[in-house]
Amino acid sequence: MMRSVLTADDMEPLARGAALLGAGGGGDPYIGALMARRALQARGPVEIVPVEDLPDDAFVLPVAMMGAPTVMVEKLPSIQQVTAAIERLASHLDRTPTHIACIEAGGVNSTIPIVAAASLGLPLVDGDGMGRAFPELQMALPTLSGIMVSPLAISDDKGNVGILETVSNVWAERLARTATVEMGCSSIISLFAMSGTQVRDCFVPATLSRCVQIGRSIEWSRTSESDVSPVAVLLQQMNAQLLITGKIVDITRRTVSGFARGEARVEESGGIDDEPLILHFQNEHLIAQRGRQVFATTPDLIMVVDKETAEPITTEALRFGHRVAVLTTPAHPRWHTPDAIRLVGPKYFGYDTNPVTATHTKLNNQEVS
Amino acid sequence: MMRSVLTADDMEPLARGAALLGAGGGGDPYIGALMARRALQARGPVEIVPVEDLPDDAFVLPVAMMGAPTVMVEKLPSIQQVTAAIERLASHLDRTPTHIACIEAGGVNSTIPIVAAASLGLPLVDGDGMGRAFPELQMALPTLSGIMVSPLAISDDKGNVGILETVSNVWAERLARTATVEMGCSSIISLFAMSGTQVRDCFVPATLSRCVQIGRSIEWSRTSESDVSPVAVLLQQMNAQLLITGKIVDITRRTVSGFARGEARVEESGGIDDEPLILHFQNEHLIAQRGRQVFATTPDLIMVVDKETAEPITTEALRFGHRVAVLTTPAHPRWHTPDAIRLVGPKYFGYDTNPVTATHTKLNNQEVS
Repeated sequence: MMRSVLTADDMEPLARGAALLGAGGGGDPYIGALMARRALQARGPVEIVPVEDLPDDAFVLPVAMMGAPTVMVEKLPSIQQVTAAIERLASHLDRTPTHIACIEAGGVNSTIPIVAAASLGLPLVDGDGMGRAFPELQMALPTLSGIMVSPLAISDDKGNVGILETVSNVWAERLARTATVEMGCSSIISLFAMSGTQVRDCFVPATLSRCVQIGRSIEWSRTSESDVSPVAVLLQQMNAQLLITGKIVDITRRTVSGFARGEARVEESGGIDDEPLILHFQNEHLIAQRGRQVFATTPDLIMVVDKETAEPITTEALRFGHRVAVLTTPAHPRWHTPDAIRLVGPKYFGYDTNPVTATHTKLNNQEVS
Repeated sequence: MMRSVLTADDMEPLARGAALLGAGGGGDPYIGALMARRALQARGPVEIVPVEDLPDDAFVLPVAMMGAPTVMVEKLPSIQQVTAAIERLASHLDRTPTHIACIEAGGVNSTIPIVAAASLGLPLVDGDGMGRAFPELQMALPTLSGIMVSPLAISDDKGNVGILETVSNVWAERLARTATVEMGCSSIISLFAMSGTQVRDCFVPATLSRCVQIGRSIEWSRTSESDVSPVAVLLQQMNAQLLITGKIVDITRRTVSGFARGEARVEESGGIDDEPLILHFQNEHLIAQRGRQVFATTPDLIMVVDKETAEPITTEALRFGHRVAVLTTPAHPRWHTPDAIRLVGPKYFGYDTNPVTATHTKLNNQEVS
């Protein structure tokens, strides 16, 4: 059996792909990549294990950073903080983890688990619990399979550690969020401890290798060998649709209850008479609409990239005047079940709209240059 | 050796004494007493062990209710919630507690540990970690002896449980407070796990028996056998001084960051020309002043009682028009060391005044009727 590994050189493409799956959330992928690169250089490559190869009795501990991405980019965790949460959860459960995993795909939450795996000398699961990023802890496919977030371990940059045992995944979110806010709006959490059987049942497979692949395709499309534009490559690679290319003309953001919330307006290139596209986000992009018409919604992915280079732009990096393309791609099919829509659909976030499925989105017929 | 026990009939006087030592904080003592009375009736008397009789290797777990008294009085914990915090801390430390203890003297925090001791069939330490009540977790004599608040276990009425391991006692306060607020402004905590040696070193001894004694003296003073007024008995019993007798003419309160904060104005009976006495409180009374002159401050105890019956009035029960006597009595001498003043003095709470020691307070020369 071929052994797959992640090396320091995979970190840049992986971070780029993760930023796309992060749908605007997850924080600056390059800071996370830098941290993972350092850990891999110091400790050697990390073995990645396909979800389907996990033994039934594997003991898998996912790890993630929690908080507002706006803060996370200014306060990267130490390796000690990352391993503290995992080790605390392992000692609480009195078991030694066999694998580390990502609970979401997106920004630092695709790279923090690499840091953990490298530091602890453990293999990493090639998959994640969302297939994208979502802002709240209960918003993961394991929740839909009845798997509990807690016991959850939380660690901060001061050395404080906590364990939560909650009656529901929503309570885990509430109590971990409030602790995270008090800890300075960012923390490391280890949660959703699972067996190999459970991971196989509910994880989206192959997201890490997919991130690397997407990242490498974008890199390649920027070279002289490529005769298609980076955005066109991305549309094909991610089975995505283009919602608009244009300029960011307005952006408001606020950090509320530990989340980065806001709206961005994108004005179509040359389309002055048209309504701008409005993006609503809470860490991740949730809704894309023009006037009263909604073109894409959570749970599908809404991604903002640089118009020329297809470089993903996270919500906290959106800036006035940036020329961007906005893309959408369907979420994993399990996110479109009624239970899933109750968990992560637009109404949960307070938007009075039904989910729009990306494959049925009315396409903007503008051509990619 | 005589065995001392607390029975259901001790609960009313104990609660009354505890409300006085609570210095306005600790929540409605009668609700707490009712709960303890029921537990004692169901499970039999609780043995109380003098601090000095604790074996060196005793494993003592204090337990308390945390939150705003305004909320605590509306949401008494279940026995299950009380024992959950203790059992969680014991299992975390992998030791069986030998004794339960009060971390503060005051209101429900003098009676919740009785509920716990009765339910768990454990003896209770006759003493507490403050000799009064204070609003924040780090404000206990064990802190001055370098004993850590954490590991701290926290439980709520929904069944959520947490363990905090913090780098300082102030961080334990911050993280437990924010969790308590999210849990609905009240929680049960078990904290300051100590050996018998440590308890003997830093506890104020005999506070529970003192509470019962004070409560019984007030009861007796209200009977026809007594020829002194209840307030006069209280002044003698508690080595207290009278600051004012008068009427509450104004009261403002707000629940801020999980605390009940506010001010009360007491106008002297017949003294219309005099400045009213202003009481500043944060769960407990902190400052008593007239105009610019400060008459009593934390760490000393400021107590408000009914003028006729000497019934203690907690801060959340202060009402316009109530005829009251305001008393002050010195805190335990260890609260007057420079370290202690930094921890609980007026400046910590944001008041620009030095501590006034109750024994040096300029006495109001009004007579008790």
